[in-house]
Amino acid sequence: MTIKDIAKACGVSVSTVSRVLNERPDVSEAVRRQVLDVVERHNYIPNTSARDLVRSQSDNLGVVVRGTGTPFFSDMLKTVTKEIDAAGYNMVLRQIGSDDDEVKAGAILEREKKLRGLLFLGGRYDYTPAELALVGVPYVCCSYTNQFGSLKKEDFASVSIDDHATAYRAVTTLIEHGHRRIAALVPSCSDHSISQLRCNGYIQALEDHGIAVDDALIVESGGFDMERAYKATCALLDSGTDFTAIFAVSDVMAIAAIKALADRGRCVPEDCSIIGIDGIELSKYSLPTLTTMVQPVEQMARESVHILVELLRREGAPRHILLDTTLREGGSIRQL
Amino acid sequence: MTIKDIAKACGVSVSTVSRVLNERPDVSEAVRRQVLDVVERHNYIPNTSARDLVRSQSDNLGVVVRGTGTPFFSDMLKTVTKEIDAAGYNMVLRQIGSDDDEVKAGAILEREKKLRGLLFLGGRYDYTPAELALVGVPYVCCSYTNQFGSLKKEDFASVSIDDHATAYRAVTTLIEHGHRRIAALVPSCSDHSISQLRCNGYIQALEDHGIAVDDALIVESGGFDMERAYKATCALLDSGTDFTAIFAVSDVMAIAAIKALADRGRCVPEDCSIIGIDGIELSKYSLPTLTTMVQPVEQMARESVHILVELLRREGAPRHILLDTTLREGGSIRQL
Repeated sequence: MTIKDIAKACGVSVSTVSRVLNERPDVSEAVRRQVLDVVERHNYIPNTSARDLVRSQSDNLGVVVRGTGTPFFSDMLKTVTKEIDAAGYNMVLRQIGSDDDEVKAGAILEREKKLRGLLFLGGRYDYTPAELALVGVPYVCCSYTNQFGSLKKEDFASVSIDDHATAYRAVTTLIEHGHRRIAALVPSCSDHSISQLRCNGYIQALEDHGIAVDDALIVESGGFDMERAYKATCALLDSGTDFTAIFAVSDVMAIAAIKALADRGRCVPEDCSIIGIDGIELSKYSLPTLTTMVQPVEQMARESVHILVELLRREGAPRHILLDTTLREGGSIRQL
Repeated sequence: MTIKDIAKACGVSVSTVSRVLNERPDVSEAVRRQVLDVVERHNYIPNTSARDLVRSQSDNLGVVVRGTGTPFFSDMLKTVTKEIDAAGYNMVLRQIGSDDDEVKAGAILEREKKLRGLLFLGGRYDYTPAELALVGVPYVCCSYTNQFGSLKKEDFASVSIDDHATAYRAVTTLIEHGHRRIAALVPSCSDHSISQLRCNGYIQALEDHGIAVDDALIVESGGFDMERAYKATCALLDSGTDFTAIFAVSDVMAIAAIKALADRGRCVPEDCSIIGIDGIELSKYSLPTLTTMVQPVEQMARESVHILVELLRREGAPRHILLDTTLREGGSIRQL
């Protein structure tokens, strides 16, 4: 089925069909309807290859996802895909492990796929200008920024939450419920990442409320995955250290901790309270419903793509957007 | 840093460096090590654009994911991405809603991105040759096949599990534990999809064990998402219909059902047993651990990409692979 066949079937000219397909106003409603009926009936898809051939440059935007398979990034990826499509670009996805080097992965992708821009979903907070020299196209750091690094503010763009303040607020929520022996479940407290920032927020909240920090209560799991969070919580329970609440730096880690507690006969919130960060859909269906700091995932994804497109169109300088998180109360915290 | 600079820094010829980078055996171990050290130290990335320019055809493989954000497809996508990369192709991802038309989405993507092949992650089981005429490149149906359709076996490729048999086995497991009042939690039992096949397996298992099928126990949620599964389970509980077990056609639906039961004061497995299908990671961390039929997700993804690449290289005719599922016992079934 070509555009000529459609014109013939409708008894109109090819240019009339073209006007309908391009949503031009100068066609009568009756003719428009008739043409769209035929198009629909024959499953006709406009051929865009001629238009594509005119473009000399690739339209590829690379998206490097670090730490694959986490529901947080799956949710984000949905919006990123939609927004990149809507902006008329082609998304090239590369998923890497949470220990892989996203800058190198991005730089390789840039060369392989002739990218015009890069979006990093997750990454380190300690980039140096020398490292980033590998990347030759505009890029946006999505969900993180450069607290531990030495990039100039005007040399990169980011969309993130305030990790320190979010953790601070989560821990303060536990303190307000009467908890003082609060464990922190973190991948690492010195990895120059999101995890360290949130751990610092935990420490600050304790100190500001006159609670001494007990190193035995800071549990480093070594990763964001459920398996290691589960094992770290078991180790904490086995250590005999006394605690009444857990602050987990992510929802999936909190859910794994609830499981570890249950397997050792402890109920949430009766025997132990818990709070997470992220607000993934799943946290609404855990037993009990998880109390968590919700990140604005869709907005974060949308803003990141918008900034990247702005940079490509040279419509603005790199920007840094800090988004708010919201406490969503579930049933995982008990008043002491 | 170019390949010449590396050769100079190592005091070897450009062709030696090239041999090292292409992992050719005819280089001494000492030289290989020296070259790789320099490559590593300077973050050198081989320039592949010259090689790319020689290719006249696009290397794009389209991947259309229907029903985005489900952990099952997130897990699968990880392996698909890796395998497509490894085969030297470029993955173009399009995520669509579970009610969208994947064939049309694939056909549009094919034209927009000049695809060489298509992989459908999830789709309808009732394709007709006329519908599939829209797709002009080789394609593979991943996780489903054509039971309700009219495609000739030799005209398409698929990798799937036996949905009917898997559901049959899940329900039989409940029956073997003494259950006879078993509810089925399904998106739909007449949608020509995975859901209908699994519902048929449920019905067959009951009939083969002399248990009358009670329509009041077949609960149609209208979708695979947690929210609708939760609501459908609440509606079942509110109806007052008596049951001792639930067969859910997916793990996330089972987890949502456990939540609905808990919110109405019913414990799993004491008050109600439950079994799912999929074997997603999360099902190991639910309370209680979910008993489920595990799909070989990685193998499914790997085989799908392999078949597609075979078809592109004209190394074989379209094949149909049926993979086995395995019962993983959790703690969600009680012996009556």
